[in-house]
Amino acid sequence: MMIYKTVLKGRYYTAIDQNQVDYQPDSLVCIDDGGTIARVVLADEDDYTTIIHTAEQTGTLVSLADDQVILPGFIDLHVHAPQWPNAGLALDRPLYEWLEEYTFPLEAKFKDAKYAHLVYDNLVETLLANGTTTALYFGSVDNTGNLELVKSCLSHHQRGFVGKVVMDNPEQTPDYYRDESADVALNETENFIHEVEKLNTDQSIPVTPVITPRFLPSCTDEVLSGLGKLANKYNLPIQSHCSESDWENGYALETHGKRDAAVLDEFGLLTDKSVMAHGTLLNDEDIKRFKDRGVGVAHCPISNVYFGNAVFPAKKLLSEEVKVGLGTDISGGYDPSVYQNIRQAIMSSRMLDEGVDSEISPDLRGKHQAAITAKNAFYMATIGGAKSLNLTTGQIKQGYAADLQIVHEKYPTFGHQGPEDTFEKIMYQTTVSEIDHVMTQGVFAK
Amino acid sequence: MMIYKTVLKGRYYTAIDQNQVDYQPDSLVCIDDGGTIARVVLADEDDYTTIIHTAEQTGTLVSLADDQVILPGFIDLHVHAPQWPNAGLALDRPLYEWLEEYTFPLEAKFKDAKYAHLVYDNLVETLLANGTTTALYFGSVDNTGNLELVKSCLSHHQRGFVGKVVMDNPEQTPDYYRDESADVALNETENFIHEVEKLNTDQSIPVTPVITPRFLPSCTDEVLSGLGKLANKYNLPIQSHCSESDWENGYALETHGKRDAAVLDEFGLLTDKSVMAHGTLLNDEDIKRFKDRGVGVAHCPISNVYFGNAVFPAKKLLSEEVKVGLGTDISGGYDPSVYQNIRQAIMSSRMLDEGVDSEISPDLRGKHQAAITAKNAFYMATIGGAKSLNLTTGQIKQGYAADLQIVHEKYPTFGHQGPEDTFEKIMYQTTVSEIDHVMTQGVFAK
Ligand SMILES: [Zn+2]
Ligand SMILES: [Zn+2]
Repeated sequence: MMIYKTVLKGRYYTAIDQNQVDYQPDSLVCIDDGGTIARVVLADEDDYTTIIHTAEQTGTLVSLADDQVILPGFIDLHVHAPQWPNAGLALDRPLYEWLEEYTFPLEAKFKDAKYAHLVYDNLVETLLANGTTTALYFGSVDNTGNLELVKSCLSHHQRGFVGKVVMDNPEQTPDYYRDESADVALNETENFIHEVEKLNTDQSIPVTPVITPRFLPSCTDEVLSGLGKLANKYNLPIQSHCSESDWENGYALETHGKRDAAVLDEFGLLTDKSVMAHGTLLNDEDIKRFKDRGVGVAHCPISNVYFGNAVFPAKKLLSEEVKVGLGTDISGGYDPSVYQNIRQAIMSSRMLDEGVDSEISPDLRGKHQAAITAKNAFYMATIGGAKSLNLTTGQIKQGYAADLQIVHEKYPTFGHQGPEDTFEKIMYQTTVSEIDHVMTQGVFAK
Repeated sequence: MMIYKTVLKGRYYTAIDQNQVDYQPDSLVCIDDGGTIARVVLADEDDYTTIIHTAEQTGTLVSLADDQVILPGFIDLHVHAPQWPNAGLALDRPLYEWLEEYTFPLEAKFKDAKYAHLVYDNLVETLLANGTTTALYFGSVDNTGNLELVKSCLSHHQRGFVGKVVMDNPEQTPDYYRDESADVALNETENFIHEVEKLNTDQSIPVTPVITPRFLPSCTDEVLSGLGKLANKYNLPIQSHCSESDWENGYALETHGKRDAAVLDEFGLLTDKSVMAHGTLLNDEDIKRFKDRGVGVAHCPISNVYFGNAVFPAKKLLSEEVKVGLGTDISGGYDPSVYQNIRQAIMSSRMLDEGVDSEISPDLRGKHQAAITAKNAFYMATIGGAKSLNLTTGQIKQGYAADLQIVHEKYPTFGHQGPEDTFEKIMYQTTVSEIDHVMTQGVFAK
C-alpha cells in the first residue's frame, strides 16, 4: 500500500480543455512526498476506501467540508511587483503619463532592500491568499529589489518567475531610472540569473529567472539583441509587452518600420518560452507569428480597459490555439485577484461581441463570435497559464504539481443546485475571503 | 450645549456634485436623536473641542481609527429581491430565455413565506453589509413574499423601497407566474400599499411601497393605465425597465408603434418619482422625456454587459442633468456590491469611449467623451440615487439622514499617500470585508 504525504478527499473542478470542465463529486487527490499528484482516485475505484483508511491511520487525510471544493491554483502571467503600492491609482491617465508620473518614480524606490522586502512580502502573500500559486513577475531595474522578490517567493512557497527589468533607451526612460547602458543591462541580467541560482539551493520550488525587456520603446536594439542571446544561452523564459496600446503599437512602426512582434522576433525574443503581455492590438500576421513560435499571451482584461485601447480578442486566439493565460497586471490592473480578471475577461469579451454603442444598429454594433464563457476563462487562468510557462501544473491530474486552492461558495444556495451552477457561482463570486486554503507543490501556503 | 445621540469623529469623503468630492481630514459628524446629521463640525470651528469633550462625557463619541474613513451609504436603485439565489447563474443566456428558464420559476417560489423570509433576510443583510443603506426592490407577483421583504427591511433597519411586481399579459408571462387579470393586479397592488402602511407603524425607517409594472412586454395596457392612476392617487414612486435591450426596445415599437418610454409616459408612469432600470438603448427623444419628467435611471453596469446589448451612456445623461444612480440588478448582475458596480460603470464607460474592436482605427473605434471618472461613479452611487428617490440622504451634510458607512483601505499604503489616492483605492478595492460599520438613520446596522 502506497503511503501518500497528503490525501485530499472532496469534490473538484478542473479544466480539461478550452471548453470543458471536469467535475468529480467524490475524489481522493493523493499527493506524494515531492508535492506531485500521484493519483486521483474516484469513488468507484477498487482501492478508494482502502486509501481513505490508510490515510486516516497515518494522519494524512484532509477531508473537505461539504461546502468546499478543490480547484487548481491560478497562474498570474503578468504582475509588475514594484507597482503593488500603486494598485488602484491614477487609472484615468494615459499610458505614457502614467508611466512617467506614477510608475517609474515608484519602481525606482526598489533599490532600497528594506522597502522592497516590505512591499514584495505583502504582495506575494496577497497573491497566494487569492489563489495564485504561480506568478510571472516583472521586477525593477535594480537587482537589490529583484532578489528580495525572489526571496519572498521562496519564503512563501509560491511558484515564482522573476525578471530583472531592462530599459536602457535614454529617449524613452527617465534619467533617474534606467540601465546605464546596454552592457550594464546585460551584465546585470546575467548577474541576476546567477544570484537566483544561488538562492534556489535546496528549495522545493525554485524561482525561475526571466529575460525581461520592458517593452520596445524602452530598449535599444543592442540590448534586445543581447537579451535574445542570453535567453538562448540559459534556455530561459522571456517576458515583455507587445502591441499593448495604439501608442506602443505605433512606436514600433515609426521607429523600426515594422510590427512590434516582428522586431522582438528578429532579436530572438519570441520563443516557445516567451510570454507577451496584453496584445490587444495584435493583427493576424502577429497572431500567426505567435502561434508558429509557440509564444503565450498574458491577457490582462482589467488593465486593458485602462491602457489597452481595445479588447483583446481572446476567443479568436483561443480558437487559433495560441497559448493564452490571464494576468492581473498590477498596477495597470487594480485588483490582485485572478478571479476578478476571469470575470472581466468574460465581460470584456461580451462587450466586444455585442458592441458598446447603442446608436449603431444591433447587426453592426458588435463583432460576433467574440464572447467567451466562464469555462474558457477558467481554462486560461489554469491550463492556459501553465502552457505559456511550460509547466506541469494547472490541472488536477496524475503527474501534475499539487498547486491547488480549496474554496467555498460565498453565499447560501437556498436549495438544490447542480454542479454547473456551483461552478458559475464560484467563478463569479469568489473573493479572497472564500479561499480557505492554498497549496503549492503539495504544501499548504495558506 | 447640544447633546447629540452620536458624534462620529474622523475623516470623510462626500460627493458634492457630479465631478467634485469633498474630503475632510478631521471632522465631527453630529447625529441627533432622530437619526439626522444635525451638524458637521470641522477642526477649525470654535466648538470643535467642546463637542468632543461633551460627547466623551456622555459616552456618545465614536472615534474612527486612523485607517478608517466615513462615506455616505450607497443607494442601490435596482434589485430583484427574489432572484438573489440565482446571482451568478446562467449569465450566458439571452434575456428572454433567462427569464423563462431561470427567473420566472424562481420568482414563483416566493408564494412560500418561509422560503421568502429565508432568502430576503439574507439578501437585506448582505446588501447592508456591502454598504447599501437604501435599496429599491422589485419583489415578486405574490404579496406573501413581498411582505416578508418589507419585514426584512424593517427588522434590519434598511431604507427599503419595495414593489409588488405586476405582470398580467398572458402572451409574455408563463401560466404559473402572472397576475390573473389586470383587476387582480391592481387590487393586489393596492392591498400591498395598505399592508406596508400597517407594517410601518412605529418604525423609524418606514418602507415605501412602489408601483411596479415589470416591463412593457409583461403588462397589458389596462394594467399600465391602472398603475399610473394608483401612483398618482397614492403619490408613490414607480419603477420599471425601459429600453433595456434590443429585444425589449423593439417590443414597444412592434406592439405599440412607439418608443418604450413614450408608452410608459402615456400611462402616467414617467414622473419625478419614477426610476427606470437600464436604459441602455434610450435615444435622444427618450432622454429629453426623462429630463422633462424628472425620471431617474438605475444604471446597472454589470447586468448591462449580459443583457443590455450596449453600454449605457452615463456621461451623456449626467451631462444633460438627468438623474442617474447605480443598481446591482441582482440577478442580471452577479454581485450585490455597489462598489463592484462603481468599478464596472467606470470600465464600461471607458470601453464606450475607447471602443472595443482593435481592427477599427483608433479615431473611429470609440465614442469620445463617454468616459466617467471614479468621482462621477461615486456621485451616482450616492447623490444620484438619492435624487432619483427624492431622498435627503447620500451626503455627509447638515439636515441629511445619517446613512453612512465606515470603511478602511484593503491593502497597506507603504508610505505617504494623498487623499485623492486614498479615495481612488477605496473606490477600486473595497469589498464587504473592508466595510467595518454601516449606519442607517443614525443607528448602526452593521
Ligand atoms: Zn505590464
Ligand atoms: Zn431588472
